[in-house]
Amino acid sequence: MTTLIFGHQNPDTDAVTSAMSFAEYQKQLGNTDVEAVALGEVNAETAFALKTFKKDTPRVIKTAANETDTVMLVDHNEFQQSVSDIKDVTIAAVVDHHRIANFETAAPLFYRAEPIGSCNSVIYEMFQEKGFKISPQLAGLMASGMISDTLLLKSPTTTDVERKVLPELAKIGGFDLQEYGLAMLKAGTNLAAKSDLDIVEGDAKSFDMGGTSVRIGQVNVVDLNEVYERQAAIEATMKSEAEKNGYDSFLLLATNILDSDTTGFFYGKNADKLEAAFNQKFDANHRIALPGVVSRKKQVVPPLQKAFEA
Amino acid sequence: MTTLIFGHQNPDTDAVTSAMSFAEYQKQLGNTDVEAVALGEVNAETAFALKTFKKDTPRVIKTAANETDTVMLVDHNEFQQSVSDIKDVTIAAVVDHHRIANFETAAPLFYRAEPIGSCNSVIYEMFQEKGFKISPQLAGLMASGMISDTLLLKSPTTTDVERKVLPELAKIGGFDLQEYGLAMLKAGTNLAAKSDLDIVEGDAKSFDMGGTSVRIGQVNVVDLNEVYERQAAIEATMKSEAEKNGYDSFLLLATNILDSDTTGFFYGKNADKLEAAFNQKFDANHRIALPGVVSRKKQVVPPLQKAFEA
Repeated sequence: MTTLIFGHQNPDTDAVTSAMSFAEYQKQLGNTDVEAVALGEVNAETAFALKTFKKDTPRVIKTAANETDTVMLVDHNEFQQSVSDIKDVTIAAVVDHHRIANFETAAPLFYRAEPIGSCNSVIYEMFQEKGFKISPQLAGLMASGMISDTLLLKSPTTTDVERKVLPELAKIGGFDLQEYGLAMLKAGTNLAAKSDLDIVEGDAKSFDMGGTSVRIGQVNVVDLNEVYERQAAIEATMKSEAEKNGYDSFLLLATNILDSDTTGFFYGKNADKLEAAFNQKFDANHRIALPGVVSRKKQVVPPLQKAFEA
Repeated sequence: MTTLIFGHQNPDTDAVTSAMSFAEYQKQLGNTDVEAVALGEVNAETAFALKTFKKDTPRVIKTAANETDTVMLVDHNEFQQSVSDIKDVTIAAVVDHHRIANFETAAPLFYRAEPIGSCNSVIYEMFQEKGFKISPQLAGLMASGMISDTLLLKSPTTTDVERKVLPELAKIGGFDLQEYGLAMLKAGTNLAAKSDLDIVEGDAKSFDMGGTSVRIGQVNVVDLNEVYERQAAIEATMKSEAEKNGYDSFLLLATNILDSDTTGFFYGKNADKLEAAFNQKFDANHRIALPGVVSRKKQVVPPLQKAFEA
């Protein structure tokens, strides 16, 4: 049976391209019966990357156990971010760069995680250790994941690994890093092409905080006014999604990738925790300013978790 | 503050020497402020290895947060097998070769696990990847961990990694693999030197199975009659340990390392699950024969877990 390899739900560019690069790694290891798939449609940024480097969009799956008994996870480990029937299959391998939580296996497995800027950064190191070859096309895909997760080396999640590796990958891939990187990031910020649901849910992840369910979405923009104009519809969508799915709180981060600033929109319980976490108050328009914040993982989840546990 | 590196409670040879070899790895990485410690006194087998390779016995700690804020785990991840205050410190790294369960972190970390024969096997690969040097003394310690966990390459947990690496380490360490390996294993089987509690608890680990607490100990012998002679005292000790610590069941595996066979002793609830797991019945002496079984991890925990979940 084919081993399926996939990143998290609501896949971003690093999740999609990590699955592809880890599938290539497995093939070079000799495990040829693997397939990179995705747990959702790719977003506009990822579509731009796939088109640029001439790769087909991965097949989307909703469940895994109906077609395989073995899977490999990239760019996530928490079961609520994974395929819905993750408990019915064997997890043979995980490659990730997030915290570990709500994850367990019955048997020993391959697990590789490092606290660095993208999942593709970890996979790149694994290619280097084995002396495996990275084609120009694969270099482009891996670079796209790194660019997306580090906002072209501007996010505080960026480490020396990405600063060193990204220029190398651009060289192998034969593209200009700044020019391609900005074009790819901008391709993901076309709000006009996104429904309200895309904006709210397109990149959202669930977290357990102080026993409550907190949903945190993020949308990248080049002009925050585009989001402000749609605030009423966005808030209505957050409300209906929270009610439908039982989220206690919903936070949407609208991040200006040019200025590296974020504005938060919020629906639900515990708004005071959000204010306490960032020492900021909601303004008259029910927006909360988060200056300098661009990383959900590094700058939003930890202080919020702390505020919920206080 | 010094980062503490340690293996599981009731440390065996792989747990103790993995902490030492991973500390050496960290030092060669440039993290000089690390100390390998142990979560309990070393056993006779480990003492033999340390004496042979002229290494001091690691300091024993009961808690970590009183002296550091950062730890690294080797050869385990499950919190109930770790230091008692594991939730009060930051786990910066894990190197392991077990399943992952009852483990979580608040932040991204370094995690490296592989389904291979010993934790030292994983650490050996990491040394190779970085081109780090292994001294003759360290080679002896790492080999000792591999020999202990694989019963000198005879356990079904053995993989091609150990088959390839152990002779290499013996060469670096300048010792005869068969001769040293058997001598080390036998040093751990001197039952006359062990109290009943040492036999029952010396290597025991706790597992959650079907919502009940199952304690599984293992003792290596070269003659099962030595254990049979002490069965009454051993069973009384299992009963009192179970009552004192709230274990629902206690299974002790007495493993003949020369014949690769095991006899099980049992106290507590769900004896029928044990019989079902191995399709064996307790004999008139309340012993259960487990022919060919030598590995708790690979041959006992998985079928027992399955029987509990059936």
